[in-house]
Amino acid sequence: MPKTTFYHAGCPVCVDAEQEILSLLDPKNVEVVHLGESKNRIDEAQNAGVQSVPALLTPNGNVLHINFGAFLKDIRG
Amino acid sequence: MPKTTFYHAGCPVCVDAEQEILSLLDPKNVEVVHLGESKNRIDEAQNAGVQSVPALLTPNGNVLHINFGAFLKDIRG
Repeated sequence: MPKTTFYHAGCPVCVDAEQEILSLLDPKNVEVVHLGESKNRIDEAQNAGVQSVPALLTPNGNVLHINFGAFLKDIRG
Repeated sequence: MPKTTFYHAGCPVCVDAEQEILSLLDPKNVEVVHLGESKNRIDEAQNAGVQSVPALLTPNGNVLHINFGAFLKDIRG
């Protein structure tokens, strides 16, 4: 089953959103990816349509940008 | 049990987000409020911290702004 992926970068906005999302969804169905620590996955996120974090990539392949923490290009550094 | 509230205004971005959110969460735990049709609830949304729609007010009282459709002030008209 396709999973939901939550991309973040450890920012305060990201952490708050993560806690909310994981309390609303079943955490075992959500993969949490810290793009600041896993920079090799930034391309994957960008190709999926993620423009900023925090963002949720749904099993349908749609991206929900949740609040605003940072742009991908700023994480890429 | 406190519910989750999804505020929207019928815009295309709102409808897409609604479909995703309702597919991820248990729809019976989510109240969907169309602020364009229920303008008497705009104050309630604003007081809860909603600045734009679509937005999800969680049972914890936190607001997740999901993508961007319209500002509350523009719905108020």
